[in-house]
Amino acid sequence: MPSDAFPDESPSALDVGLLAPVAVGHDAEVTDAAVLDALVAAEVALVRAYADVGTAPRAVADAVESALGWRGVGEPCRGHGVDPVALAGTSVSGGNPVIPLVATLKERVPAEARAWVHRGATSQDILDSALMLMAFRAARAVVADLRATEAALAAFAEEHRGTVAAARTLTQHAVPTTVGLRAATWLRAVHRSADRLEAAIDRLPAQLGGAGGTLASFVEIAGPDVAPRMPERFAASLGLAAPEAPWHTTRWPVTELGDALVAAIDAPGVIAADVATLSRTEIGELAEGLGGGSSAMPQKQNPAGAVLIRSAALRAPQLGATLHVAAAGAVDERPDGAWHAEWPTLRELLRLALGATAHAARLVEGLSVDRDAVARNLTLTRGLIVAERLSLVLGPRIGRDRLAALIAAARGGDGGDLATLVRALPEAADLDVDALLDPAKYTGLAARLVDDAVAGAGDVARPHAGAQPARPEDTP
Amino acid sequence: MPSDAFPDESPSALDVGLLAPVAVGHDAEVTDAAVLDALVAAEVALVRAYADVGTAPRAVADAVESALGWRGVGEPCRGHGVDPVALAGTSVSGGNPVIPLVATLKERVPAEARAWVHRGATSQDILDSALMLMAFRAARAVVADLRATEAALAAFAEEHRGTVAAARTLTQHAVPTTVGLRAATWLRAVHRSADRLEAAIDRLPAQLGGAGGTLASFVEIAGPDVAPRMPERFAASLGLAAPEAPWHTTRWPVTELGDALVAAIDAPGVIAADVATLSRTEIGELAEGLGGGSSAMPQKQNPAGAVLIRSAALRAPQLGATLHVAAAGAVDERPDGAWHAEWPTLRELLRLALGATAHAARLVEGLSVDRDAVARNLTLTRGLIVAERLSLVLGPRIGRDRLAALIAAARGGDGGDLATLVRALPEAADLDVDALLDPAKYTGLAARLVDDAVAGAGDVARPHAGAQPARPEDTP
Amino acid sequence: MPSDAFPDESPSALDVGLLAPVAVGHDAEVTDAAVLDALVAAEVALVRAYADVGTAPRAVADAVESALGWRGVGEPCRGHGVDPVALAGTSVSGGNPVIPLVATLKERVPAEARAWVHRGATSQDILDSALMLMAFRAARAVVADLRATEAALAAFAEEHRGTVAAARTLTQHAVPTTVGLRAATWLRAVHRSADRLEAAIDRLPAQLGGAGGTLASFVEIAGPDVAPRMPERFAASLGLAAPEAPWHTTRWPVTELGDALVAAIDAPGVIAADVATLSRTEIGELAEGLGGGSSAMPQKQNPAGAVLIRSAALRAPQLGATLHVAAAGAVDERPDGAWHAEWPTLRELLRLALGATAHAARLVEGLSVDRDAVARNLTLTRGLIVAERLSLVLGPRIGRDRLAALIAAARGGDGGDLATLVRALPEAADLDVDALLDPAKYTGLAARLVDDAVAGAGDVARPHAGAQPARPEDTP
Amino acid sequence: MPSDAFPDESPSALDVGLLAPVAVGHDAEVTDAAVLDALVAAEVALVRAYADVGTAPRAVADAVESALGWRGVGEPCRGHGVDPVALAGTSVSGGNPVIPLVATLKERVPAEARAWVHRGATSQDILDSALMLMAFRAARAVVADLRATEAALAAFAEEHRGTVAAARTLTQHAVPTTVGLRAATWLRAVHRSADRLEAAIDRLPAQLGGAGGTLASFVEIAGPDVAPRMPERFAASLGLAAPEAPWHTTRWPVTELGDALVAAIDAPGVIAADVATLSRTEIGELAEGLGGGSSAMPQKQNPAGAVLIRSAALRAPQLGATLHVAAAGAVDERPDGAWHAEWPTLRELLRLALGATAHAARLVEGLSVDRDAVARNLTLTRGLIVAERLSLVLGPRIGRDRLAALIAAARGGDGGDLATLVRALPEAADLDVDALLDPAKYTGLAARLVDDAVAGAGDVARPHAGAQPARPEDTP
Repeated sequence: MPSDAFPDESPSALDVGLLAPVAVGHDAEVTDAAVLDALVAAEVALVRAYADVGTAPRAVADAVESALGWRGVGEPCRGHGVDPVALAGTSVSGGNPVIPLVATLKERVPAEARAWVHRGATSQDILDSALMLMAFRAARAVVADLRATEAALAAFAEEHRGTVAAARTLTQHAVPTTVGLRAATWLRAVHRSADRLEAAIDRLPAQLGGAGGTLASFVEIAGPDVAPRMPERFAASLGLAAPEAPWHTTRWPVTELGDALVAAIDAPGVIAADVATLSRTEIGELAEGLGGGSSAMPQKQNPAGAVLIRSAALRAPQLGATLHVAAAGAVDERPDGAWHAEWPTLRELLRLALGATAHAARLVEGLSVDRDAVARNLTLTRGLIVAERLSLVLGPRIGRDRLAALIAAARGGDGGDLATLVRALPEAADLDVDALLDPAKYTGLAARLVDDAVAGAGDVARPHAGAQPARPEDTP
Repeated sequence: MPSDAFPDESPSALDVGLLAPVAVGHDAEVTDAAVLDALVAAEVALVRAYADVGTAPRAVADAVESALGWRGVGEPCRGHGVDPVALAGTSVSGGNPVIPLVATLKERVPAEARAWVHRGATSQDILDSALMLMAFRAARAVVADLRATEAALAAFAEEHRGTVAAARTLTQHAVPTTVGLRAATWLRAVHRSADRLEAAIDRLPAQLGGAGGTLASFVEIAGPDVAPRMPERFAASLGLAAPEAPWHTTRWPVTELGDALVAAIDAPGVIAADVATLSRTEIGELAEGLGGGSSAMPQKQNPAGAVLIRSAALRAPQLGATLHVAAAGAVDERPDGAWHAEWPTLRELLRLALGATAHAARLVEGLSVDRDAVARNLTLTRGLIVAERLSLVLGPRIGRDRLAALIAAARGGDGGDLATLVRALPEAADLDVDALLDPAKYTGLAARLVDDAVAGAGDVARPHAGAQPARPEDTP
Repeated sequence: MPSDAFPDESPSALDVGLLAPVAVGHDAEVTDAAVLDALVAAEVALVRAYADVGTAPRAVADAVESALGWRGVGEPCRGHGVDPVALAGTSVSGGNPVIPLVATLKERVPAEARAWVHRGATSQDILDSALMLMAFRAARAVVADLRATEAALAAFAEEHRGTVAAARTLTQHAVPTTVGLRAATWLRAVHRSADRLEAAIDRLPAQLGGAGGTLASFVEIAGPDVAPRMPERFAASLGLAAPEAPWHTTRWPVTELGDALVAAIDAPGVIAADVATLSRTEIGELAEGLGGGSSAMPQKQNPAGAVLIRSAALRAPQLGATLHVAAAGAVDERPDGAWHAEWPTLRELLRLALGATAHAARLVEGLSVDRDAVARNLTLTRGLIVAERLSLVLGPRIGRDRLAALIAAARGGDGGDLATLVRALPEAADLDVDALLDPAKYTGLAARLVDDAVAGAGDVARPHAGAQPARPEDTP
Repeated sequence: MPSDAFPDESPSALDVGLLAPVAVGHDAEVTDAAVLDALVAAEVALVRAYADVGTAPRAVADAVESALGWRGVGEPCRGHGVDPVALAGTSVSGGNPVIPLVATLKERVPAEARAWVHRGATSQDILDSALMLMAFRAARAVVADLRATEAALAAFAEEHRGTVAAARTLTQHAVPTTVGLRAATWLRAVHRSADRLEAAIDRLPAQLGGAGGTLASFVEIAGPDVAPRMPERFAASLGLAAPEAPWHTTRWPVTELGDALVAAIDAPGVIAADVATLSRTEIGELAEGLGGGSSAMPQKQNPAGAVLIRSAALRAPQLGATLHVAAAGAVDERPDGAWHAEWPTLRELLRLALGATAHAARLVEGLSVDRDAVARNLTLTRGLIVAERLSLVLGPRIGRDRLAALIAAARGGDGGDLATLVRALPEAADLDVDALLDPAKYTGLAARLVDDAVAGAGDVARPHAGAQPARPEDTP
C-alpha cells in the first residue's frame, strides 16, 4: 500500500478497514468487489429477462450466464474476471462504472451474445439494481444479527428478570427498576428495528426504465406487448421486487432502506451507550465478556464492543441525511450529482449496520452482570431510591412540607437512616416500613414488561450460531 | 430588545415566521401555544384514565376537564388560561415545561381534584404524549395536503399524458418523455410518502411509564391489576395508540415519524426542483400560476412556491438526522440532553412538512405548461433526442462507426438535417423515416405509466378544497 | 389554534421558547422582532450611504432616520411601528420579508424621502446585511459568555490545581490527573472557540451588490466614481465590515460564522458531558450549584444546566451542515431556495450558542467539587490507577510476565493489596513504594498545564457580571 | 463478497473507489496504507524525540528509523513491511490499530531498541498524530488544486471580462452581468477557501499527552525538566505544529480542519452547480472541455466533471457535522466512541476534497464558453433584462404605473419591441435609447470586480502543471 507492501497495481485500495474496525470481518457483502459482482449480475439478469420474455434466444442467455459467472437467482456473479480496481480507474471520465463495464463484458461474451449485453438499458438501471441486490443481501445479514441480538437479549432479560437495580434519569438515581426490564427495553427496540428493516428489504425493487424512464428502448426491442413484462423478469433474476415504475428520480427505495438502517444502528447504539455507562469503573454493573486492552495501561478492560458500536451510531444519522438530501435534489430524469452521492453513502450505512449489529449480538451474548455492584449501587441514595413511593404513600398522611423535610434529613444522613425516620412518624404506625422501603417491592410492572417483550421476541429466540447458516457466505 | 411594536408581554416570541415564510399560515397546529394546549390535554387525559379504570371518582375527572378546557378525545385543551410565554420562562430551571405547568394547573382545579393532577406521572410521560398529540394532528394535516397534491397531480398528468417533452439526464436532453409521465412520477412519490406518513401516524403512541418506566407509581396508586390498563385509557383520551411499553429510551415513535416527515418533504422537494428548473427563462416549459415579484426587477416572475418548498427540503434531512443522533444517545432511563434535543427538532420538521406540502398542493394546482416551449425545446438537439432509437434501429444495419459518424454530422449540422442524413442511407430505404424520427413515437410506456399512477391515486382524486374541511381548525 | 390565553393578534407566534428552554431569556438579540429591527436598520443605512457619498441630500437621510427609529451605528432600529407578525404574513408570496417591508417603510417616511428607500438595492442586500447585523450583536454576546466561562474556569482550575482525580479513558479509570487539569482543558477549548468566533465576527460583511451583484443600479444612481464607495459607507452605518465584493452566491460569511458558532457550542458541550458524567450518582465528583428538580422524585438534583447545554450541542452540528448544504448549492446570481434555507438555520444556531454559553458560564460559576468523592473514586482500582507507572518502573526490573501477574493479583485482591505485593518484590527493595504508588506523585505536567492555560486566559479573567455591561442591551 | 478476481489475501478491501469516482486517482495520500505509513512514522518520531531530548541514545533512534522505513521529516514511513489488511483484522478487539501495530513494530526493530518503541505513549497519541500527518499532506494537495483552480479562474475571468451575459436570480433572468464576473466570484470563493485551509494546515498539531493527557509517563521516563520538550520534538519530526497541550478531548484540530475542508468543497460545488446549469441543453453557455459519454445515448456530452464535484459537495456537509457531533461528545479523558467516529469521517472528507478540487482545476482549465449562446440568451426577455435600469431612469419621468404598463407591453410583445416603446415616450426624447437598452452598458462595476479578484489571486496565477511538483508523490 503506498508502502512497498502495497504494490502499484492497486493504487486505489483506499479502505481496507483500518479506520473502521467496527465493520472489519463483517463487510464482505458490501465491498467494491461485491458491488462489481452485483453489477455483472444485473447485466446478466437483463439478458435473462430478454430470454424469459422470448425476445432473445435462451442460448444467448445461457452463453452470457456462463461467460460472466452467473450463480443463480439473487446471487452476485463470480469468476467474471473483471478487476474492480481497474474498473474504478476507467469509471471516472463517464462518472459511473457501468459505461466501462459494459465494454469489458462485451469482450467476455461470445460474439453472438454481444449485442444483447446492456441492450436497451441505461447505466442507472444497472447500477441501481446492483446496489439493491447488494443491499438486499447485506441487509438480510443485518436482520440476522438483529435477530441473534434479540435472542440473546431475551435470554439475558429472563435471567435478570428479578435483578433489582437503580433506574437513572438525567444521570441520577430515580426509582428502582430491574436489569431485566432494561434489557427488555433494548429488546423491543432491536425487535422493532429488525421488523422494519425486514419490511424494507422485501420492498427493494430492481430498476429498469431505460434512458429516460419510459422503457422506450424495450418497446423498440421487444415490442409494446412484451416490454411491460421486462422489469418483472429482470427483477426476478435478481431476487428483487418488481418495480411499480422506474424510480430514477423517486428515491424512496434508497431513503426507506437508509432510514431503516439508521434505525437498525440506533437500537444497538442505545445498548452500547448503556453498557459503556454501566461498565464505568464507579458503576461496574455490567461488563463485556471480552473487553479490549490498552496500549499503555495493563490493568484496563475497556468496553471495546460498546465503543465500536457507538462509533457507528454517531456516524449513521448523518449518512442517512445525505441520502435524503440527494433524494430531495433528484431533478430531471436523472440528477446531476445527487444520484452519485447516494452510492458510497448507502454502502457505508450498510457497512456500519453490518458491523454494529454483529458486535451487538456478540456483546449481548457475552454480557455479564455484577449483581453485587447492582445491589450496592441501589443503596447509594440511602434508601431514597423509593422517595417517589414515600411521596405517594406518606404525602397524603404527613403533607408535602414534612415529607420534604424527612427526605432532606435522610439525604443528609443527619437524622438517622430513612427507615428510622419513617418509623418515627406516628402517621406511619400502621405501615410495613420494611416493605415500603424495599426497592424490590417497588418495581411496578417490570416483570410483566419483561415477559411480554420476551414473548414478542419468541419466534426468534434461537442462538446466534443458528442464525449464521442462513447467511449467503456460509452456503457451500 | 424587540421593537416598540412588539410588546413587552411576549419578550420571548422568538419566531413569528419572518425567517420561515414557507410555513407561515400553515403552522397553527405546531405553535408553542398548541404544544401547551396538548400538554394540558395530556394532564387531563391522565385524570380521565384514573376515572376510566375506577381509581379516581368520575366527578374529579369532570372537574378537571371543566377547569382545564378539555374539548374531547384527540383535541388539545383550550381556555385553560396558562400563558405559554410565562411558562417558557419558568421551564428553564428544571429543563422542561411540565414541572412548572403542574404547579400552575393544580392551582386551577378544585381543591378536591388537586391531588389527581399529574399523579404518578413523570414529566416525560406528559411531554412525550403531548408531542405525539401535536404530531398526530399536524401530520394528519400534512397527509391531507399530500392527498390534495396527489389529486392535482393526477389531473395534471392526465391533461399532459400526450404532451411530448425532452427527458433530461445529467442536465442534457436524453430521449423523449411526456409532461404527463414526469407528473406521474411526482405523483407516485407523493402518494408513497403520504401512505408512509399515514402509517406512521396510526402508530403514534402515548407515553405512560412513570419515573423509571416501570409504572410502579401507577401500581401503587391503582393497584397491580388495574395499573396495566392505565396506558391504554390514557392513550384513548388523546386519540393515540396505546403504547406496547414505555418508550422513554426507545425513540422509534419519534424517529419513524421524523423519517416519514422528511420523506414527505423530499417528494414536494423534487417537484419544486423540477419546477424551478423547467421554469428557467431559457427553458420556460412550466410556470407557477402565481409567481413571486421582485423588489428590484419589475419584469420578473419568480417560481416563489418552488423556492419556498426547496428551502424546506434542504433543511429537513439534517433535522431528521438530529432525531436519530438523539435516539442513539438515549442512555439510562431518561437521557441527559438527547431527549431535550428532540422537542424543537420534531416540531420544526412538522412545521416544514406543513408548509412544504401546503405549497406543493397550491403549486401543482396552479401549474401551467407552455406547450410551445415544450415542443420547441424538443427540437433543440436537431432531432438527436431520438439518437438512442437510431442506435437501436440503424446500429445493426450500418454498424457502430457509421452510426457515430451520422450522429456527429447531424449534431454539427453540416451535412444537412438528421432526416436527410438518414434518408440518404441505402440501408434505411425500407424505413418510415418520419415515424422513426418522431419523438412522439418514441415514448415507450409513458402513457401506460401515467394511467397506472393516476389509477393508483384514484381514491384521493378530490380537489384541494375538499380536503380542507377535515382539518381540525376548520371544524366549527 | 392557540389557546384563548394566546391572543389572536399573534397567530403565528410559533416559538416562544417552550421547547427550547436552553435559550429562554438569552435570545432577545435574535427574535423575529430583532430581525425586523435589523432589516429596518439596513434600509436606513442605505439612505445614509447615499447621503455619505453625496448623492442624496443629508436631510433625506435625517428624515428617514427619524421616521424609522434609527438609533446609531451598529444598532437595530426601534419604534418604526412595523409589526413583525403582519410582515411575516405578507412575506409569503414573494418568498422574503423585504418586498412587503419596503412598501410599508415607504409609507412611513416623508414623501420627499420615499424614492430613496431601498433605492438600487435588492432584497438580498437588505436581508443578508440585516442577518449579519443581528449575527454580529448576538455573536458578541456569545463571546462575552464564553469569556465569562473562561474566567470562571480559570478560577476553578486554579482552585483544583492539586485535586488529584482519576482520569478516565473509554469509561475506565486510566491514570491520575487533576480536577484542575480537566478544567484547564475545558478552558483551552472555550478560549479557542471564543477567539475563533471573535475573528469571525470581525469579518462579518454587509452585503451590497444590487440585483445581479454588479452594483449597476448604484452606478446608475450615484455614478461610476461614487458607486464603489457605497458598500463601505453602507457597512459603516451597520458597524459591519465592508464587503470585498458582493457575496450573494459565495456564502462564506454565513458558513464561517456557522462553523465558529458550532465550535462555540461544542466547547460547552464537552463541559456539560463531563459534568453530567461526573455528577452521576455513583461518581458524585461534581455538582451544579443549582440542580434541577423533578416532577416525580423529590430527592433528585439533576444536572439541569448540563442537560440544557447538551440539548444544544446535539443539535448544532446538523444546523451547521445545513448552512454548508445551502452554500454549496448557491447557483446563479441568487439561489432558488438555498439562500432561504440559511435564514432560520443561522438564527437557530445563534440562539443555541447564546443559550449554551450563557448556561455554561453559570454552570461553571456554580460548579462544586466533592473532594471526598474524588479521593474515594481514586482508590476504586485498588491502587492500579498507577499501573502504567508500575509498568514503566517495574517492567524493566521484573519483566513483562511477572508484572502482569502482579497486576492481576492486585486486581483480584487475592494476594493482598498492591503495596504489599510490590514491597514483596526483591527487585523493588530500593524503591520508595509509597511514593511510587501515590497517585498524587504521578500527575506529570498537570500543574504546569493548568498554569499555562490560566495564564493564556488571563486577559479575560474578569467576573461574569463584569462582562455583562458590554452587551448592547445593557447600555442606557 | 470478493469475486474470484479479487483475491483472498485482501478480503477487506472494502473500497477501491468504484462508488466514489470523484476521488479515484487523487486519493493516494489518504488510503489505509497511507494511514499505516503515518502511524509508523509517528512511532518512529517518538523514538526520535527521546533521542532529541537526550533520553534515548541516538543509535536507538537510528536503528528504529532504519528498521521502520523512516524517510524524513513530514514523510510517512515506507518499507516497514506491515500489512494494512492484516493489521485491520487485528485492530478489532482493542478497537484501534495502534495496539497490534506496536506489537508488530517491536518485532521489527533490533532488540536493544524494542523498549523504546511506543514508550510512554498511548494509542491516541499515535493515531491522532498520524491522522494529522496524513491530513497535513492531503490538505496541502487540496490547497495546490485550489490554487490551480484559482489560476485557471483568473485566466478565464480575464478572458471573459467583457462577455456580457444574463444574471439569474431565483432561476429567472434578472439584469446583465458578465461571464468574467461570474468567474471572478467563483475565484474569490476558491481563494478564500484555500487561504482558510492553509491556515488550518499550519495549525495542525501533533498529539502527545500519554494515557491521561498529563504526560506523566514522559516525566517518569525523561524527567520533569525534559518531558515538557518531548511534544515539540515529536511534532518536529512529523512536520506538525507543536501542541499547546494535549487535545485528547478538545477536538478543534479535527473540527477546524473539517470545517475548512467542507468549505474547500463548497467552493468547487458552486462552480459545478453553475456549470451544470449553464451547460443545460437549453442554456448552452458553458461546456466542459471533456464531457462524459452515456451508455445509452450516443449524442450526449454530459458535464461529468461538474457531476462528480457535486457528488462530493452534497456529501461533505454531513461528514463535517459528524466531526462536530464527535467533538461535542468528547467525554472523559478519551471518549468511548466519539473519537473512533472521527477517523473514517475525516479521511472521507479529505478524500472528497482531494477529488473535488482536482476535478475543479481540470474543469475550469477546460471550460469553454459559447459566446453565441450567451448573447442569444441575453435577448430572451425581449430587452427586459435592463428593466431595472428603465425603472431607475424612466420611473421618475413617467411614473410607476406607466412604467409597469410599458414593461407589460414589452413583455407580451404586442405593442412592438422595447426600443420602439421607449422611443415613443415624449419623456424619453432626450435619452440615448440604444445606450439605455444596451445590456453591455448596464454591467456596473463588473469589470472592476473582475480586476480586483484577479489581482487578489495574482500570486497564485501559475499553471496547474506547476503546482504539481510540490506534491509529495511527485518528488523523486
